[in-house]
Amino acid sequence: MAQKPSIPKGTRDFSPAEMMRRQYIFDTIRRVFRSYGFAPLETPSMENLSTLLGKYGDEGDKLLFKILNSGDYAAGLSDEEIRSASKICEKGLRYDLTVPFARYVVQHQGELTFPFKRYQIQPVWRADRPQKGRYREFYQCDVDVIGTRSLLCEVELVEIVERVFKALGIRVALKMNNRKILFGIAEAIGHADKMMDITIAIDKLEKIGLDNVKAELMERGLEQEAVEKLQPILELSGDNAQKLNQLKEVLSVSETGMKGIEEMETVFGYVERLGIDLTVELDLSLARGLNYYTGAIFEVKALDFAIGSICGGGRYDDLTGIFGMPNTSGVGISFGADRIYDVMTGLNLFPEEVNCSTRVLFVNLGAEEEAAVLPILRTLRGEEIASEIYPEAGKMKKQMEYANRRGIPYVVIVGSQELEARAATVKDMRTGEQQQVPFDQVADFVK
Amino acid sequence: MAQKPSIPKGTRDFSPAEMMRRQYIFDTIRRVFRSYGFAPLETPSMENLSTLLGKYGDEGDKLLFKILNSGDYAAGLSDEEIRSASKICEKGLRYDLTVPFARYVVQHQGELTFPFKRYQIQPVWRADRPQKGRYREFYQCDVDVIGTRSLLCEVELVEIVERVFKALGIRVALKMNNRKILFGIAEAIGHADKMMDITIAIDKLEKIGLDNVKAELMERGLEQEAVEKLQPILELSGDNAQKLNQLKEVLSVSETGMKGIEEMETVFGYVERLGIDLTVELDLSLARGLNYYTGAIFEVKALDFAIGSICGGGRYDDLTGIFGMPNTSGVGISFGADRIYDVMTGLNLFPEEVNCSTRVLFVNLGAEEEAAVLPILRTLRGEEIASEIYPEAGKMKKQMEYANRRGIPYVVIVGSQELEARAATVKDMRTGEQQQVPFDQVADFVK
Repeated sequence: MAQKPSIPKGTRDFSPAEMMRRQYIFDTIRRVFRSYGFAPLETPSMENLSTLLGKYGDEGDKLLFKILNSGDYAAGLSDEEIRSASKICEKGLRYDLTVPFARYVVQHQGELTFPFKRYQIQPVWRADRPQKGRYREFYQCDVDVIGTRSLLCEVELVEIVERVFKALGIRVALKMNNRKILFGIAEAIGHADKMMDITIAIDKLEKIGLDNVKAELMERGLEQEAVEKLQPILELSGDNAQKLNQLKEVLSVSETGMKGIEEMETVFGYVERLGIDLTVELDLSLARGLNYYTGAIFEVKALDFAIGSICGGGRYDDLTGIFGMPNTSGVGISFGADRIYDVMTGLNLFPEEVNCSTRVLFVNLGAEEEAAVLPILRTLRGEEIASEIYPEAGKMKKQMEYANRRGIPYVVIVGSQELEARAATVKDMRTGEQQQVPFDQVADFVK
Repeated sequence: MAQKPSIPKGTRDFSPAEMMRRQYIFDTIRRVFRSYGFAPLETPSMENLSTLLGKYGDEGDKLLFKILNSGDYAAGLSDEEIRSASKICEKGLRYDLTVPFARYVVQHQGELTFPFKRYQIQPVWRADRPQKGRYREFYQCDVDVIGTRSLLCEVELVEIVERVFKALGIRVALKMNNRKILFGIAEAIGHADKMMDITIAIDKLEKIGLDNVKAELMERGLEQEAVEKLQPILELSGDNAQKLNQLKEVLSVSETGMKGIEEMETVFGYVERLGIDLTVELDLSLARGLNYYTGAIFEVKALDFAIGSICGGGRYDDLTGIFGMPNTSGVGISFGADRIYDVMTGLNLFPEEVNCSTRVLFVNLGAEEEAAVLPILRTLRGEEIASEIYPEAGKMKKQMEYANRRGIPYVVIVGSQELEARAATVKDMRTGEQQQVPFDQVADFVK
């Protein structure tokens, strides 16, 4: 029986100290989502495998956690059939929040009011090889609006990025791209089929330099002429407006490309007029989710901490098509709670009060003292001041140690002297200072 | 591709309307837990099957959801082996929050400060036959303290019950029992082995009457003399103190029984002296979790709504023994969020504001109007007033319908007249009243 307990690799326990920080992040994100009129949604951890399979590519299918059918899963199956997961598993754990969201919207389309604005903060599971910073269970914080093509939605997401990271104290830059522009570039140089190659090449510009990028593009099948047409785009410079103006010259032949430029001009225009306090930068190398996004693409980077993107998303014009509800456009972003946690820990950004679960400990020195203290404790708790009494009467030293180890900032001591004076000794554990406080003023004092 | 999407039976989507109510319940519970110095903990959804198996009895083992090993689960296994779930599954979804908690405490005992107070609000999964009110995925809200035998912990839980249900507006009664008393009764009448039979018989008293209970006890192997000794207990009456006094006479021969009485007297004494505003009633028929609880047993019933218990728990002296850490006493309770939800819905107890995700909708009547409105909207959101603009300019009627269907209480209209007056028309959708409000006072008006 005395097994040494452990948890599956790639999963985590979140200790109280970690949880309080995580909750601070989730609460902040949730509060901002709510102020923008997004409503919460939760979907089941398990989805039918038919809902999940084929939605994330072959690689994604392999990363789905499958749940063994309950009861006698093998009954009536041949040996061969049992070797096929599709026969013994009908359900899987969700892989992201986007496909369940699409499934929900299609399943409940008759009851929903469109545009439908929802946020969803839940764990997802992936049978990835565990490694540093990559887990098999992690939370996603998604916010999406579906059922409108209005660019005000993109602007709303920019504002949400601004407000979430301002509230958390993380300095960030928002990079934006637009799939229509990328397609327009490929179209304009006569290679509509090579959009991805071109985007990847642009992404390498900083690392390998212009000449190498050109060489690589030719290796990938672009002729000299096309590469030359691309040159002004590789050399784009200036602010967003200047970049867009330079792009207009090259993309004038591509209707889609010009539409993309117009979209970005609209979004950037709103951002400026509203005084959104966030660096928003057009970045043509942003290739995130190029397979499914159809318009704007977002990615957020922390300015003061080296880590991948901490938030990202984009617009998808046909997300619900996979479930038989075509032509429903949506746009959304997802906040990466784990990376945000790492940034905030690295930069020491968590407010001090997030680190303590209990604000006040009442020392327990015996029956009479306890009787005097309990009503005060009850008052504090009634005022939602997190507080507790050491549950057993005993040595002061042990109880002070407990307070120290728990990081409790205030200790209230009531011994015989204090009983007589009807005033507690309140010790500030951070400074070591002690003060006499009448019983009926303890709550106000520690607030 | 156009499959009609659905979710696995026994699971649920929680719509925004349901989620907002659920969050209200969770937030209230969490707030009370926090004021009592309990800190949050989360454990992974998946545990090793070795952690879960054998902890919930044979029946429980069957109800575990098992996760198929990832990769080629069948590789190297014989046909026979593949028919054994233990060969193809190493992980399972957690069945409750208690076993993972025990596993966590044992695994991290070196880092924890005892007494360790934690709460945990997470879903659990059971492969039960789905039926009304019974789901395969549901949340538990557990609060436990481990590492002390102090009865102050029991009192703390009584207070938590008082405060949670007061905050939610649900009138409840708390029933308490004590396993030591039940054992003492069995011991006193010379049948220490028949504790469970006797408890079950007491439970039937109201339903089938004294004579039938006596007959049943004799069928279950008690002789006439033992049943006669039991008679005063079957006829216990009066308040808690009176009941305990009557019990003392019968249980004087049982050390354990007297200890149980003393425990209850202590707890009831605290409850009275602290003025805890909750009906706490000694109920010897309470047999909940008799297999693992060793001291106090709790169960909460709603007074104004017919439903099973909505909260329950007890003390267990050796929870962590299963993982090789003996003699660590703990006590905890669990709130049943689904049933609490049903009670609150049935009694219409949710505050009105919980039902709307957006407080203010700005109607969108065109580019110029929109430009005037967006800065006001931004101010409201900055003040965390949940608000939105209809994302597309269009007919007023459609936009008012949207507000109605979403249950948005305030609609702000800015048309050409309002533009000129720099005052918006604010319509209260509940009363139909309209009022002119200067642009810079809209935030204060709708607060």
